[in-house]
Amino acid sequence: MLITFEGIESSGKSTLSKQLTNYFKLKNYNVIWNREPGGTELGEKIRELLLGNYNICHASEALLFAASRAQLVEELIKPNENKIIILDRFVDSSIVYQGYARDLGWKEVYEINKHALDGIMPDLTIVVDISVETSFKRMENKNKDRIESEGKEFFKKVREGFLKLKEWFPERNIEIINGELSLNEEFDILLNIIKKYI
Amino acid sequence: MLITFEGIESSGKSTLSKQLTNYFKLKNYNVIWNREPGGTELGEKIRELLLGNYNICHASEALLFAASRAQLVEELIKPNENKIIILDRFVDSSIVYQGYARDLGWKEVYEINKHALDGIMPDLTIVVDISVETSFKRMENKNKDRIESEGKEFFKKVREGFLKLKEWFPERNIEIINGELSLNEEFDILLNIIKKYI
Repeated sequence: MLITFEGIESSGKSTLSKQLTNYFKLKNYNVIWNREPGGTELGEKIRELLLGNYNICHASEALLFAASRAQLVEELIKPNENKIIILDRFVDSSIVYQGYARDLGWKEVYEINKHALDGIMPDLTIVVDISVETSFKRMENKNKDRIESEGKEFFKKVREGFLKLKEWFPERNIEIINGELSLNEEFDILLNIIKKYI
Repeated sequence: MLITFEGIESSGKSTLSKQLTNYFKLKNYNVIWNREPGGTELGEKIRELLLGNYNICHASEALLFAASRAQLVEELIKPNENKIIILDRFVDSSIVYQGYARDLGWKEVYEINKHALDGIMPDLTIVVDISVETSFKRMENKNKDRIESEGKEFFKKVREGFLKLKEWFPERNIEIINGELSLNEEFDILLNIIKKYI
């Protein structure tokens, strides 16, 4: 079972996804957590390029994310298909950031990613939704990377894109959690969602 | 005008492509030479990953080459469309190495690359053809990179793929030069080809 967490910067998706991983561990489930871009030796190198200060055109950015994803699918997801795999970001981040917010087209970026996914899609996707204002407040004292350094207009489009996922993929299990609640409240909502699917 | 040189390792395409570049320079043409993967700051970093010793699955390899290519198209090819651009390897290397020799499918790899090419294709492609035996003899004392370290069976498929390009792309200008001749003979043949197109 592949569960992915998505959302704009500082939405709290990393915290929630790690807390869910611990919950499964305590319940003795076989569970793996990882993040994108990265998760493999090659992927971490690609991550350095993507978050560094290189001149990267939009198509190249989308292709690099897909390259990192292809390696993650091959090295981590396929050999562990009998486990619960929890990912902090996956294909939807590309569809939304490069496809929708960067104007490459969400369908075009999905097409690129199909070559990386080899048929694998998330069984459940949790979008942790916060306002762009909250995101910027939470990032205030952060040393921002190349993508985090984009302006508010960009992240408004990113948020909008994440909220459109259900419309673009009506057949998928996509659930939205309000990321402006307390962590306890959010985790309760998350567990109720999880219980529907496991 | 975009002229690309393709062929298996040690076919002599780098030498020929550089000699043609000098020829155009002496004739006072505006000419640029570059190589793939690489050619941009990002591309050179991607080159290090591709030729290094990372575990890279076939899809990831194809996507990384395409990412490097997208940046080259954006930074080097589009801004210089009024010049003669000569490239040592371009999209056909991906179609042949990843698509045909690695079994991803030449059409599938071409599809991936369309996202990188943004409508740009070579005006003329020179395939420098040598036997795999000659290629291995010429590489004998070389410190081989990840791709050069593949076996003879792989390069037989690569050579076969390059020779199939004309069949796959009947509408393109693709010319094959015998790379086992002397450099002078090869360059004469090359100039005769060039004169047909310029």
